[in-house]
Amino acid sequence: MKPDKILLDHGSGGRTSHDLITGLMLPLFDNPVLNQLHDGAVLTVGNHRIAFSTDSYVVDPIFFPGGNIGNLAVNGTVNDLAMCGASPLGLSAGLIIEEGFPVRDLEIILNRMAKSARIAGVYIVTGDTKVVPKGAADRIFINTSGIGLIPDGVDIGAHRVCPGDQILLSGTIADHGMTILTQREGLTFDHPIQSDTVCLNHLVQEMLAVDPDIHVLRDPTRGGLGTALNEIAGQSRMGIQIFEDRIPVRNEVAGLCELLGFDPLYVANEGKLIAFLRPEHAIDILEAVKQNAAGKDACIIGEVISGHPGRVLMQTRIGGTRIVDMLTGEQLPRIC
Amino acid sequence: MKPDKILLDHGSGGRTSHDLITGLMLPLFDNPVLNQLHDGAVLTVGNHRIAFSTDSYVVDPIFFPGGNIGNLAVNGTVNDLAMCGASPLGLSAGLIIEEGFPVRDLEIILNRMAKSARIAGVYIVTGDTKVVPKGAADRIFINTSGIGLIPDGVDIGAHRVCPGDQILLSGTIADHGMTILTQREGLTFDHPIQSDTVCLNHLVQEMLAVDPDIHVLRDPTRGGLGTALNEIAGQSRMGIQIFEDRIPVRNEVAGLCELLGFDPLYVANEGKLIAFLRPEHAIDILEAVKQNAAGKDACIIGEVISGHPGRVLMQTRIGGTRIVDMLTGEQLPRIC
Repeated sequence: MKPDKILLDHGSGGRTSHDLITGLMLPLFDNPVLNQLHDGAVLTVGNHRIAFSTDSYVVDPIFFPGGNIGNLAVNGTVNDLAMCGASPLGLSAGLIIEEGFPVRDLEIILNRMAKSARIAGVYIVTGDTKVVPKGAADRIFINTSGIGLIPDGVDIGAHRVCPGDQILLSGTIADHGMTILTQREGLTFDHPIQSDTVCLNHLVQEMLAVDPDIHVLRDPTRGGLGTALNEIAGQSRMGIQIFEDRIPVRNEVAGLCELLGFDPLYVANEGKLIAFLRPEHAIDILEAVKQNAAGKDACIIGEVISGHPGRVLMQTRIGGTRIVDMLTGEQLPRIC
Repeated sequence: MKPDKILLDHGSGGRTSHDLITGLMLPLFDNPVLNQLHDGAVLTVGNHRIAFSTDSYVVDPIFFPGGNIGNLAVNGTVNDLAMCGASPLGLSAGLIIEEGFPVRDLEIILNRMAKSARIAGVYIVTGDTKVVPKGAADRIFINTSGIGLIPDGVDIGAHRVCPGDQILLSGTIADHGMTILTQREGLTFDHPIQSDTVCLNHLVQEMLAVDPDIHVLRDPTRGGLGTALNEIAGQSRMGIQIFEDRIPVRNEVAGLCELLGFDPLYVANEGKLIAFLRPEHAIDILEAVKQNAAGKDACIIGEVISGHPGRVLMQTRIGGTRIVDMLTGEQLPRIC
C-alpha cells in the first residue's frame, strides 16, 4: 500500500527509498541520464564526459569522532564523482543554517570542509547560504554538489557487470554508521570507534592506472554494503556471490552491532568502495589498493555468478547460504 | 562587532550575508573561481566553459500564487546559469523532507519541478532525498544545482562593466517577495499579486543572439534590485546611475510596499534580470526582450557613469538624488 505521508524510511537508502524514486520521481523526471540511477549523472560536453552529483547532509550529531558534517559533505560528493571514475573539477556548497547557530561551530565545520577539499584536490567554487528561523531546521544542513571529468576509456556502470567479475571491498564496513549511533546514544567505549569518512578519488585513480576497464564502482553509504550490492545485482540482472568470512569488520564494531541488533551489512560507510573487476586484473588492483591508506584492509569478497539474476547470495561463516536482501525498514535516520 | 551566533540577516542576501561570505568563507575556501562571487562559477573543460551553480530553497509558504517551492527551485538555478550566459545542461535536485510530509504535496511539488524543467529545456539528471524526523526541518527544503554551457564569444561579469553601459531591467520588481509576504500574513486583495518565478534562459539566448557582447547579467533575487546593483558597482568599482521613474512596479505591489513599509528596491524577484549593455546595441536588445513574455515590461533604467566608483545613485521621482545602499537588516526571511 502506498503511504500517504513521507516516512523516515523513505530516506533510508533501502527499499522504501527506492520505491519512492522509481514510483514517483522517475516517471515525472523521466530522462535517459537520470534513469541510470548511478551515484552521479554522466553528461557529454563536446568530447568530454562530465560526472555530476548531489547529496544533502543532515547528519546528527554534526560533530563526531572522525570529523563533522563538513568533511562528510565534501568527501561524500567527491566519492560520488569518483564512483563514476571522475576526478573532481569543482564542488558547490549549499548551507541551510538555523538562526542562533554558533558562528564558532560554523567556522569549525567550514574549516573541515576546506581541509577535505584540499586533500581531495578540488575547489569549492560556488555556494549559497540560507538562514531559517529558530526551530525551522535542526542546526545545519549542507548540500554539496560536484562535477568531475571522466577520463577517456573509462566506462563504469552496472551495464558492464560480467559473470566472473571479482568484487573488491576497500576495507572494514559499518564504521561510520555505528560511530554516529554510539555518539547519539551517548555510549562510550575503551576502544572508541570513528567514522571512516575519507575521499576516495585518489584511490580510484590509482586503481584505474592499473586497469582502466573497471566495470563498477560504488560507495556503500546509506543502506550499507548489502543495499549497494543489491542495487548492482538488480540493475545488471546478474547474480552476486559473497563470502561472509572475507568481509572485514572491526572487532569493536562487530561487537557493537551484535549488542545493539544491527547487521553490519546494512550499516553506512563513508570511506569505502566496492569495485567489480576483470578477473585477470583483480589481484594487481587489490595490491594497488592496499598501498593506499584508505584501502589497507581491502580484500576480494566475492564474484559475479551466472545464476540467480538480481540476487545477492552470501556464504555464511558456518557454511550455509543466505540471501542478502535489500534493506527494509529505517535503521538509522540522519546517518549522513 | 562580529556576532557569535548566526542571525536571520546572515541569509538576507544583503550586507550581513556579504560580510559572512567575504569574512569567513572566502578566506577559507580561497580560490580564483569562487572569489569572483558570480551567481555561478565558470570552469574550463577542454575548449568549453561550464557554468556551475547551486541554491537551496527554504521558502515559506511552500505553495503560493505563481507556483510552489518546486518551480521556484528549478527556475532559480536555471536563471543563475543563464546569468553566466549559459544554456543549462543538467540540474540536480536534493530534497530534505520532514517526516510526515504529505506524499500528495510532494507529488504536486515534483510535478511543478518537472514542468518547469521541461519549459526551460533541461533534464533533472541526478538527485538525493533525505528524510529527517518530525520537527528537525520545516516540511521541505530543496537544493537545486546545475551546470550549463557558455557559448563561445560570451564573457559576462562585473569586470566587463564600462562607463556608458546601458542598464536594462526586464520587468516589474518586488512581485515575488510581496507575494510571499502577503501569503504568510494571510492578506487578501481584490487584485491578487503573484510570484514572477519563471526561467530566463531562453530570454538570455535571445539577447545574446542580438549582441553576444553583453557585459553583465544578474537576477535580482534575495536583496532585490538595490542589492544586485550594489554588488555590481562594488565588484566593478564603477558608478551606477538609475532613474526611479523608469523602474516598473505594479500598482498593487507598490501600494502594498508603501502600506507595509517595504522599499521595492530591496524586495526579491524570481523572474527578472538586469543587463549591462553596450550603448550601440541597447535599443535592439530591449526590443528583443520585449518580444518575450518574460520581458514585456522591460526598460532601460539607467547607465554606468564615470564618477562615484562603487556607488549606486538614484534620481528620485521628485528630481533629487539618493544613494541606494546595500540592504542592511533582514527584510523577509525564507523568501526563496
